[in-house]
Amino acid sequence: MSGEDAPVQEQNAVDQKQESKPTEEPKTEVEPAAAGAADASAAATDAAAPATATTEKVPEEEAFTYRALVLTGYGGYDKVKLQVKKGKPSLKAAEVQVRVKACGLNFADLMARQGLYDRLPSPPVSPGMECSGVVEAVGEEVTDRKVGDQVMVLSRFGLWQEVVAVPANHTFLMPEGMSFEEAAAIPVNYITAYMMLFDFGHLRPNQSILIHSAAGGVGTAATQLCKTVKDVTVFGTASASKHEAIGQAGVTHPIDYRTKDYVEEVRKISPKGLDIVLDPLGGSDTHKAYNLLKPMGKLITYGAANMLAGQKKNLLAVAKNWYHQFSIHTLNLIQSNKSVCGFHLGYLEGETELISQALNAILDLYKQGKVKPRIDSTWHLEQVGDAMRKMQERNNIGKVVLITEPMPEEEKKEEAPVADKKKDDKKKDDKKKDDKKKDDGKKEEKKDDKKKEEAKKDEEEKKEEVKKEEK
Amino acid sequence: MSGEDAPVQEQNAVDQKQESKPTEEPKTEVEPAAAGAADASAAATDAAAPATATTEKVPEEEAFTYRALVLTGYGGYDKVKLQVKKGKPSLKAAEVQVRVKACGLNFADLMARQGLYDRLPSPPVSPGMECSGVVEAVGEEVTDRKVGDQVMVLSRFGLWQEVVAVPANHTFLMPEGMSFEEAAAIPVNYITAYMMLFDFGHLRPNQSILIHSAAGGVGTAATQLCKTVKDVTVFGTASASKHEAIGQAGVTHPIDYRTKDYVEEVRKISPKGLDIVLDPLGGSDTHKAYNLLKPMGKLITYGAANMLAGQKKNLLAVAKNWYHQFSIHTLNLIQSNKSVCGFHLGYLEGETELISQALNAILDLYKQGKVKPRIDSTWHLEQVGDAMRKMQERNNIGKVVLITEPMPEEEKKEEAPVADKKKDDKKKDDKKKDDKKKDDGKKEEKKDDKKKEEAKKDEEEKKEEVKKEEK
Repeated sequence: MSGEDAPVQEQNAVDQKQESKPTEEPKTEVEPAAAGAADASAAATDAAAPATATTEKVPEEEAFTYRALVLTGYGGYDKVKLQVKKGKPSLKAAEVQVRVKACGLNFADLMARQGLYDRLPSPPVSPGMECSGVVEAVGEEVTDRKVGDQVMVLSRFGLWQEVVAVPANHTFLMPEGMSFEEAAAIPVNYITAYMMLFDFGHLRPNQSILIHSAAGGVGTAATQLCKTVKDVTVFGTASASKHEAIGQAGVTHPIDYRTKDYVEEVRKISPKGLDIVLDPLGGSDTHKAYNLLKPMGKLITYGAANMLAGQKKNLLAVAKNWYHQFSIHTLNLIQSNKSVCGFHLGYLEGETELISQALNAILDLYKQGKVKPRIDSTWHLEQVGDAMRKMQERNNIGKVVLITEPMPEEEKKEEAPVADKKKDDKKKDDKKKDDKKKDDGKKEEKKDDKKKEEAKKDEEEKKEEVKKEEK
Repeated sequence: MSGEDAPVQEQNAVDQKQESKPTEEPKTEVEPAAAGAADASAAATDAAAPATATTEKVPEEEAFTYRALVLTGYGGYDKVKLQVKKGKPSLKAAEVQVRVKACGLNFADLMARQGLYDRLPSPPVSPGMECSGVVEAVGEEVTDRKVGDQVMVLSRFGLWQEVVAVPANHTFLMPEGMSFEEAAAIPVNYITAYMMLFDFGHLRPNQSILIHSAAGGVGTAATQLCKTVKDVTVFGTASASKHEAIGQAGVTHPIDYRTKDYVEEVRKISPKGLDIVLDPLGGSDTHKAYNLLKPMGKLITYGAANMLAGQKKNLLAVAKNWYHQFSIHTLNLIQSNKSVCGFHLGYLEGETELISQALNAILDLYKQGKVKPRIDSTWHLEQVGDAMRKMQERNNIGKVVLITEPMPEEEKKEEAPVADKKKDDKKKDDKKKDDKKKDDGKKEEKKDDKKKEEAKKDEEEKKEEVKKEEK
């Protein structure tokens, strides 16, 4: 294994694309976005179908259209476009068709947009690893799902669409009282946090842990899960403006990583170090994490967020991350009694039993009121660019969620999220860790904003046309 | 951490020697071995004191002598010599003095003799990481131990002596019904196996595991501990002659690593791979272990037994082990969802709480009859060379134990172990994995046997002299 480096991204992953389940079925051409044209007439049995369902009498197959977010190429926020697909996804044996209500945004989606995530086939392709919705058709051999079931869905990609066909064993029944937004916020973040903490981490009472980005999706989930174990000391990094929120959520010692050296801060309180460090950053932060461990400590690395600097792929940041990539010799591990673990749910495809076990445990905790997803903000599919920006700029506290409900006309003009609890965050009173990176990012964003505005205009014009047709 | 290699052995570890507890106290000169001269008159309160205790009326301090095994230099079996120390070990606050009854042999002791274990100060020094015995004096501040307590002791080194002074919190009360031999066989092997399986490994029902050297000390302990978890599939390597024994102990699939490729054998039965691999071998076997893991699998490496080839340090074997040393990049770990852990009890000094927790759990299992050390053979201190040879040549099934009870005259002539359940193993009907290594080893052994015979003659002559003096 020594020196054997797996590629982060195989941009021409043709074979992978062939594997893809959720996106390979659309029968007809992909068209430019047309919000409001979504059609659920074919799923009339589904009481929870979108309110916009039309009732025109056209042949079922032809009339079936649905909106989908499609990554059209690697790059900035505008590369994810809202399009309308025609024709029902074909439903294979052991699959169910789900009318999607809400989708979760994940860091892997941001990486994927930049071409930094090899689990997403090359564009054009629909991103999206998790969603919630209602079963509206059931394929052969499916015995444990029925039309009308409210489910959460986990998949390698392809769930940012109004309708998806997925293997039934990738769906999980939502408990009573759970909203679709919550359901879309659970699978990736909570399963990730749960498996890291309780399988690799073997978290026990009286232990101590460092959670980076404690206000993020995984960070929030991990903090809540830590609170289910007695007397766990949680160090959590976040910018100062989020400290109150993460403190309330269960972080014992919030650390402003933008103004303070988190290693020093941890050592002040826990001179001996920590039992667990969750590391989503990669690069030199992984080295720091390792050195912060006590004997029998576990470093669990689950990302390379440090690679993300700016809206588009930043080669310098990627190279830096590679250069500083942590590698470890076993004799060193032996002499320090430490463990180094890597986790990424995107590479656990097929491990349905492991995943089900974890999710069932999480849902039990949810029913007991011990965990509850924190929704930072919900956005219409049309607003996916802003939603991604919010997450990438670390302005969220909790989960950023997309909803498939079409955007009302008045909101379109305002261009605000459906429910944004932290609007002011965008003003960026916090300093970025790496100012250089930020500047690079900004330049790119400005260019992209221009492009985006143009794209939006185009889209809106097209939508107007669609509406006229409908009338 | 990249490329940072910790030295296996610092031969001139002067500072380490200064840290040493159990060996720094002997007040008087170290003398050549004199079996039978052991004296426990100072510990007359101890009913279980060696039968050879003399009752001559000389000043207590002067009369106090005890036998100790001392590593006199790095090399072959003959480098560990039996000597007599004069004067009571000084007893500091928080320490207890223990009259040792039995000592465990560990792989680290074999490595240490070759100069391959940096936790043992440079010679002359007494090896020995574990023993059992009876408390015969209690230092100030000790409240939870009293004279007469039967205890097992764990230390970094220095326990292969008839009398030791050790921190009270390095001693653990023996449960009722446990023999001294069992007690000497528990600490290192069972704590190692327990912490690897249940802390790093997080072993759960229905999982699968590969245990190398399943007939060895850690292997036996690990197999028994696996049996305390429901439906764990245990693959265990051992030479064919030991398969019946390890099968009875709980190994589901014994594999003869000398005639078969264990990777292939495991894949035949578990094509997807394993949840846990315990790796005491190092070198290229660590790579194999890693590749045998399932997603969420844990590789726990706890030694470099592959470095041991022959009686004396084999530079080729050491270099080979280094060359093949496993090193891993975090991105690889992330993309395969795996964990790599290093464990060595010798580097956990000071973690008394962790160790006590593990040992208490083990003793609970012992009391419930769920674990019971398997003693391969017991040897007098005089026979330490043969005991080490038995272990190094992998002829043991279970634990090799030294006892401090002096060797009866008739046995000395026979030169047999006190109780050797597998005498015939030495005939080596099994083929060694690496014939080259074996040959190298044999040549060295022949030379050493000669030296040893000479040394024995010397010793016996000296013993005769001592006896005459006693009379």
